[in-house]
Amino acid sequence: MKQFEITLPVFKRGFHIVTEEILCQIDTLPKIGICSIFIKHTSAAITINEAADPSVLTDFESSFNLLIPENAPHYIHTYEGIDDMPAHLKTSIIGTSVTIPITNHKFNLGIWQGIYLCEFRNFASPRSLVITVY
Amino acid sequence: MKQFEITLPVFKRGFHIVTEEILCQIDTLPKIGICSIFIKHTSAAITINEAADPSVLTDFESSFNLLIPENAPHYIHTYEGIDDMPAHLKTSIIGTSVTIPITNHKFNLGIWQGIYLCEFRNFASPRSLVITVY
Amino acid sequence: MKQFEITLPVFKRGFHIVTEEILCQIDTLPKIGICSIFIKHTSAAITINEAADPSVLTDFESSFNLLIPENAPHYIHTYEGIDDMPAHLKTSIIGTSVTIPITNHKFNLGIWQGIYLCEFRNFASPRSLVITVY
Repeated sequence: MKQFEITLPVFKRGFHIVTEEILCQIDTLPKIGICSIFIKHTSAAITINEAADPSVLTDFESSFNLLIPENAPHYIHTYEGIDDMPAHLKTSIIGTSVTIPITNHKFNLGIWQGIYLCEFRNFASPRSLVITVY
Repeated sequence: MKQFEITLPVFKRGFHIVTEEILCQIDTLPKIGICSIFIKHTSAAITINEAADPSVLTDFESSFNLLIPENAPHYIHTYEGIDDMPAHLKTSIIGTSVTIPITNHKFNLGIWQGIYLCEFRNFASPRSLVITVY
Repeated sequence: MKQFEITLPVFKRGFHIVTEEILCQIDTLPKIGICSIFIKHTSAAITINEAADPSVLTDFESSFNLLIPENAPHYIHTYEGIDDMPAHLKTSIIGTSVTIPITNHKFNLGIWQGIYLCEFRNFASPRSLVITVY
């Protein structure tokens, strides 16, 4: 088992493909295994989805903004900004980790799949990931 | 650690219990362990939910169609059909993998739990799963 | 690999931080590893989110009730109560397990992160978790 704690550069609010940013910061992968990628934040998430057409990323941002609106009148937790409570909700809907199979020393992803960083804050900061390979 | 790449038969759009389809394609499970089931697609997902009453599956399909509508006017990524962008969104809401504990050589699921394949495309194709047992 | 099957006390409907309830029922954690926490139910979920401000928990409950309404006219699976089908849907949106990295014998969570039990039933029962550490 090997573990890497890495920091992603700041990405603006939205959905971003970070497969290469992750791979270049970890060691050679084992022949067979699992990679767990965990994000140590409550206002950003990680998922796997379509990595070929950038318009998918745009549609993710607009669709999640419709699904979880800002300025909902029932929010109590508002003092960190109108994007804060929606960011927490989106984080639990999408999730804080992904588990990827490793086969022949590579992530065994489908041909269209890539790893997304989902940045939900207007003023984002660098995001820490813990990557465990076993 | 053992890994199996299996293909599920084509299921029509909707939610389907595939616990047995998966178990019959993998080896005897270890006494204690974990099974990671990963779907290599961006328009189908995998989850664990109620496996006793088929009406739950029907309600999942209608509820997710209401939650993530087709023909939303803001979608840019539309050229693969009206079901395509909703399929990507539903996939990240539900997720591309499940992690199941293994106890006494069996999936340690709750009595009502089963594994769902969530097929979001109108014209579905066979779906590939990578199953890692450790 | 070590595995623990624990039972949480009954929590009322809503979102509850259970990080300490879990830690006090499992052994010393390894120096480096992974902890998988799996909930054996179809009407309660587990997630990781903000553990500092209790108003976030309140906003989660009201927001998920808006996202997945009770008494939706299309529900067929209704005989276990108006909270039952919404509970199944919320469970698959949030998920039945979390995977947490272990570093230096501790959960390597972000400073704001805690583990949430998400109880979706009006009349809740004790919830069983399977915790696998490896």
